[in-house]
Amino acid sequence: MAASHATIAIDAMSGDHGLRVTIPAALQALKTWSDITLVLVGREAEILEALAEHNETPNERLRVVHADQVVEMDDLPSKALRQKRQSSMRVALNLVKDDQADACVSAGNTGALMAMSKFVLKTLPGIERPAICTAMPTMKGHVHMLDLGANVGVDGENLLQFALMGSVLVSQLDDNPAPRVGLLNIGEEEIKGPERIRHAHRLLLQTPLNYIGYVEGDDIFKGDTDVVVCDGFDGNIALKASEGVAKMISFHLKKAFGRSLLTKLAGMVALPVLRHFQQTIDPRRYNGASLLGLRKIVIKSHGGADEFAYFHAIGQARLEVQKAIPQMISEQLAQLMATLEQQDTVHESEQQAV
Amino acid sequence: MAASHATIAIDAMSGDHGLRVTIPAALQALKTWSDITLVLVGREAEILEALAEHNETPNERLRVVHADQVVEMDDLPSKALRQKRQSSMRVALNLVKDDQADACVSAGNTGALMAMSKFVLKTLPGIERPAICTAMPTMKGHVHMLDLGANVGVDGENLLQFALMGSVLVSQLDDNPAPRVGLLNIGEEEIKGPERIRHAHRLLLQTPLNYIGYVEGDDIFKGDTDVVVCDGFDGNIALKASEGVAKMISFHLKKAFGRSLLTKLAGMVALPVLRHFQQTIDPRRYNGASLLGLRKIVIKSHGGADEFAYFHAIGQARLEVQKAIPQMISEQLAQLMATLEQQDTVHESEQQAV
Repeated sequence: MAASHATIAIDAMSGDHGLRVTIPAALQALKTWSDITLVLVGREAEILEALAEHNETPNERLRVVHADQVVEMDDLPSKALRQKRQSSMRVALNLVKDDQADACVSAGNTGALMAMSKFVLKTLPGIERPAICTAMPTMKGHVHMLDLGANVGVDGENLLQFALMGSVLVSQLDDNPAPRVGLLNIGEEEIKGPERIRHAHRLLLQTPLNYIGYVEGDDIFKGDTDVVVCDGFDGNIALKASEGVAKMISFHLKKAFGRSLLTKLAGMVALPVLRHFQQTIDPRRYNGASLLGLRKIVIKSHGGADEFAYFHAIGQARLEVQKAIPQMISEQLAQLMATLEQQDTVHESEQQAV
Repeated sequence: MAASHATIAIDAMSGDHGLRVTIPAALQALKTWSDITLVLVGREAEILEALAEHNETPNERLRVVHADQVVEMDDLPSKALRQKRQSSMRVALNLVKDDQADACVSAGNTGALMAMSKFVLKTLPGIERPAICTAMPTMKGHVHMLDLGANVGVDGENLLQFALMGSVLVSQLDDNPAPRVGLLNIGEEEIKGPERIRHAHRLLLQTPLNYIGYVEGDDIFKGDTDVVVCDGFDGNIALKASEGVAKMISFHLKKAFGRSLLTKLAGMVALPVLRHFQQTIDPRRYNGASLLGLRKIVIKSHGGADEFAYFHAIGQARLEVQKAIPQMISEQLAQLMATLEQQDTVHESEQQAV
């Protein structure tokens, strides 16, 4: 495999829509990027049939690997891990483990994907907990946030690791040499959140990361932070609340334009503008969350992703392969730990000198 | 005081804009509701001057009480409590304590207002921690959420009390005999959030409250829940993230319509529709958070509230006086506790019988 070529294993069966979404998205990705090869993993007969509907057959850049089982959206992670060893998700991850693919994309259930990925691919040396990271639109561009639900009840050192991983991802993907890292907290002066967050704050101040301090919920979308770091519980709440508000606003906007003939006409006049607006904040363009901290690349697509959104998740996998994200995280983590240890040593000898 | 008449103490000096907002909002409130009396608390000379600008003087329904100090937005709660005993916030709360007013409205800093309110007015018997509760728009109407930042690190019983307080508030304000109560959590099947939430879940299942189970961040805005209960940290994150997204969307919407002459024209055609839409989700209409669990009524306005928003906070105070919210909470809490104890007794005797 050339450095610039990416072979991506697609868990073709998972997600709310399975093959109906993954097949056309995969074909679109192959058309768009000449530097990728896709391996569709799932029930071979069904995949071949779905390909035939698009007048396609397997070829050099589009391989099919059979897997009999499917991880369902409501399968418990522990059950999926024990009982779904022949699933498309598991087989796709095995391809990555065995270096037959550089990355895996799945729209399957998050808990099962994280559990299987940890088990099959293992975490990077020194990483205690992998985290889920995604980009979201802001007033000025986009922001990456992690963790979004893989870890509930992390400690300060976990948050430090999340900060490093997010920072490496953004520096590579956005060619940003010093991503601004913020720690999600609340604003009450004397409370300032749980001890784990204050601990992470103290740790981050000692790092060479471009740490800008605490950020609040509304700061996420202002565009003045590149990486927002938080516990998985808080991140999940913030992400889903944000999605909920966006849907609610879009619902009321459509309703306002649909009230009468007059408002419908106004809507027709405004349609190109509304479409441009919608593209700017289209969550589908941000589909494809990274499972950071693993030895290999795994991208989680929204379960309900459509063809356009799933296509973007494949694009995310391609970018992360090109940028060798896990290797970069591993190197930067080793450097960071060395720096922190050195500081501790200096600190200790200073204390002894006093 | 007749039962239907409300005397409301206005902390006229606090908030980002002080008298510039509180005075016109107060005058508008007096014009709108003939069943209220307002007591403006703050520096008398400045208040009289501000009133004169509106050609107004104190009268039977508009009294002025002097207070020399102002609690600043960045005053630490503990400092405000010790050193600002002559502040407009503190004097306004004292009026409520001494039954010279039925409620207090303040746009001052949340931590200081909560600390002073607890100290001056005390909590209701049996309530461990008061909570901050506000309404927010949804797809179908509105939802109340609590706690929004007063309490970080609550336990299951605190969450149970929040559920009861929110339920009482909504049942009274919305004439809703059985508000649907949801517990904010994340969706991962095997994690299901911290133990405090699972404990609250078990407790809530035993109550006569209309408890509908766990809700996720995006459920808040669907309109299928009337009361969302959470820890103050989670609530604050969810609320602020939601505010941030709404501002970001509004920013991009304006930008899309402002791009060119053509889009500006489209915007003019769509203006009445956009205005109707904006009114539906206007956060100013929802201004006025309740500090629930105190013996008296305290309403917290957004610090940055404008005249229209502050007017709504006064309206919220008026409604809560009319509905006697603290008394209702106190009664319902006593009933709930009796029910839970009875169940425990039955449960114990059943166990003994076995």
